[in-house]
Amino acid sequence: MKQTKLFTKTLKEVPKDETSYNATTLIRAGFIDKTTAGVYSFLPLGWRVLTKIEMIIREEMLALGGQEINMPALASKENWQITGRWDNFDVLFKIKASDNKDYALNPTHEEIVTPLVKKFVSSYRELPFAVFQIQTKFRNEKRAKAGLLRGREFLMKDLYSFHSSQEDLAAYYEKVIEAYFNIFTRCGLRENIFLTYASGGSFTKYSHEFQALSPVGEDVIYICPRCQLAVNQEIIKDQDSCPQCGNKDLRAEKAIEVGNIFNLGTKFSEAFALNFQEQTGEKKPVVMGCYGLGISRLLGTIVELCHDEKGIIWPKNIAPYQIHLLSLNKNEEAEKLYQELIANRVEVLYDDRNISAGEKFAAADLIGCPYRLVISEKSIKAGGVEVKQRQNKEGEILSLEQVVATFIKK
Amino acid sequence: MKQTKLFTKTLKEVPKDETSYNATTLIRAGFIDKTTAGVYSFLPLGWRVLTKIEMIIREEMLALGGQEINMPALASKENWQITGRWDNFDVLFKIKASDNKDYALNPTHEEIVTPLVKKFVSSYRELPFAVFQIQTKFRNEKRAKAGLLRGREFLMKDLYSFHSSQEDLAAYYEKVIEAYFNIFTRCGLRENIFLTYASGGSFTKYSHEFQALSPVGEDVIYICPRCQLAVNQEIIKDQDSCPQCGNKDLRAEKAIEVGNIFNLGTKFSEAFALNFQEQTGEKKPVVMGCYGLGISRLLGTIVELCHDEKGIIWPKNIAPYQIHLLSLNKNEEAEKLYQELIANRVEVLYDDRNISAGEKFAAADLIGCPYRLVISEKSIKAGGVEVKQRQNKEGEILSLEQVVATFIKK
Repeated sequence: MKQTKLFTKTLKEVPKDETSYNATTLIRAGFIDKTTAGVYSFLPLGWRVLTKIEMIIREEMLALGGQEINMPALASKENWQITGRWDNFDVLFKIKASDNKDYALNPTHEEIVTPLVKKFVSSYRELPFAVFQIQTKFRNEKRAKAGLLRGREFLMKDLYSFHSSQEDLAAYYEKVIEAYFNIFTRCGLRENIFLTYASGGSFTKYSHEFQALSPVGEDVIYICPRCQLAVNQEIIKDQDSCPQCGNKDLRAEKAIEVGNIFNLGTKFSEAFALNFQEQTGEKKPVVMGCYGLGISRLLGTIVELCHDEKGIIWPKNIAPYQIHLLSLNKNEEAEKLYQELIANRVEVLYDDRNISAGEKFAAADLIGCPYRLVISEKSIKAGGVEVKQRQNKEGEILSLEQVVATFIKK
Repeated sequence: MKQTKLFTKTLKEVPKDETSYNATTLIRAGFIDKTTAGVYSFLPLGWRVLTKIEMIIREEMLALGGQEINMPALASKENWQITGRWDNFDVLFKIKASDNKDYALNPTHEEIVTPLVKKFVSSYRELPFAVFQIQTKFRNEKRAKAGLLRGREFLMKDLYSFHSSQEDLAAYYEKVIEAYFNIFTRCGLRENIFLTYASGGSFTKYSHEFQALSPVGEDVIYICPRCQLAVNQEIIKDQDSCPQCGNKDLRAEKAIEVGNIFNLGTKFSEAFALNFQEQTGEKKPVVMGCYGLGISRLLGTIVELCHDEKGIIWPKNIAPYQIHLLSLNKNEEAEKLYQELIANRVEVLYDDRNISAGEKFAAADLIGCPYRLVISEKSIKAGGVEVKQRQNKEGEILSLEQVVATFIKK
């Protein structure tokens, strides 16, 4: 993509009411735009990153045998009344529509997926299975000040699994934990994420959260340095030692919750009479699990964790482009290299604008592509192209042939 | 996909309040589920079709130079007040949120994209460009009775273009018309679609609709048989002849509007002061076009147009699977063929269920994949596999080698 064609550019001004690092940086870099508090548009660069994270998550969900579906944002009041959550879910958006009916904007989909699945399940032979969606959710937050970390509207992946027994659910639950760590590893965050024991709500003793250590996190977690497990502060009174090794010497840290998985047991299947017939003929409620992962929140978390004072440092798998090519008054040479790279499906953002070298360097650091390639009088004299990784201070000169060989084989 | 693994199945019952052919058939075939009136979930088969239509549309939009973005569903009241549409847009969903602010659920995005683009445009040098999104829209419909043809929540593609002159917009507008016809052709509907002159609202003299002939359509259009152009009944008083050849002998037909494109002129750029500086230094409002296409509505339209008394007949490019493989008590042989086809990335739905041949045939006709392959005692005796196209009455026997050669090269 040539930057003279890209309709966005880096901005100097950000909305006055935006205080979070992730949103101010993403707005300045032209990745997102703030529509109103807690509500953002994704612009071409931001949409590319979001789509890459989405594809990683989709692949891991399909590998778990998840069947992809798409449930609506609107639900009728009745669905939410059946579980008692119409009155008890504190951030439920409620709408009075012109047919005089009340609707909710779903912040989660147990109230939708359970009656849906009920239409297809009657026997143990139809279990287990799992469905997932990548879909926009809504939360009626009183305050929304953390950028993409706590939005009124946000993209989520939610997976729901259906089983004939707690044992079967437990085995699947472990596989989902593995898949989640695959996702975080592929998104460049593995070492920052702690599996955290948290409140199970009304469903079960514990739920499990995936917490990313960060000073801007809203949660406090207590980490066991031996097991790399953690306990959320909300349950530390009941669980003041490592659930695995019993170690009581836990370290408190602030963290951002990027995922939360629940053993729902039979709470929702009982509410909606989602039952199945056992091999013995006995009728039982289906055992359910639910597994959430905030996709736009994960993007915001990555920005909080992967940056320096100059801007974002994208992990390679989710960078908007692998290469940021800068021409310093050498557009003819740069154009040739650009064409050769894109012909070979290398992802290149090409700064062909008529602005100063300093502005181009600053924009490249802010946008944060993994590799910066500079073609200038100086680089040509030195034998080719200056190649610098975003996180490094120094680059090296590669010949055009070396550049092509390096990036095309990647 | 093996049908023993697919969590949906064909259903005999449909919701009593569902009267449209498209929704009742898609529900019976397990493609969608009705959450509430005008609000549907897409199940694995339906989601596959929707995703294929989406990809065709995305490719054509990218070919037009469109830059993909994603704007939110929520907007603040202020955005809609600036254009006066907070009070005048009859199907706008309005929400009072817990921060005591009013929000709209966007049914269209001029109120969002115009102030967004304003942050990046100041000079003629930054024009023209176009942005598009594939995103969920909301309409507060009093009645929703036509299935996917008129939903309260639905998937749309909307493209917005920005120009320095009416001439530049006019040239782009023509290219969009071409791209739309490419989309309909690729979705198997070309011959059914008429470019229709319709009301331009407060923006311009005409807008253009893409109307699919169908007895269930809500619109009446007057077709010029010579030019294959049409005039919407809403403007037939002002335009009672073919806009191209002047022919007054027009034929009235019912039709479904699947797309609508507008020359917005400067209506929205003036409201939001989206201006640019000309080469001469003169300041002018940007000239805008907007181009909508209902993706879930297009899916519903295809079902209305492409079916027989037994079920859906999917056009090949958007079928959930190319092949529906039926094993009639020959699971060993069928499994072998299934594995060979999927190893070669052929899309196969494999009915490996333990049900009667009659039920399998009925489900295959209802689901409507382009090719039905039957492996049975009879087909094996005759030399292989019975291959039948969905729209044909008779199939033919092909050897296993012929089947593999036929479908793998496709």
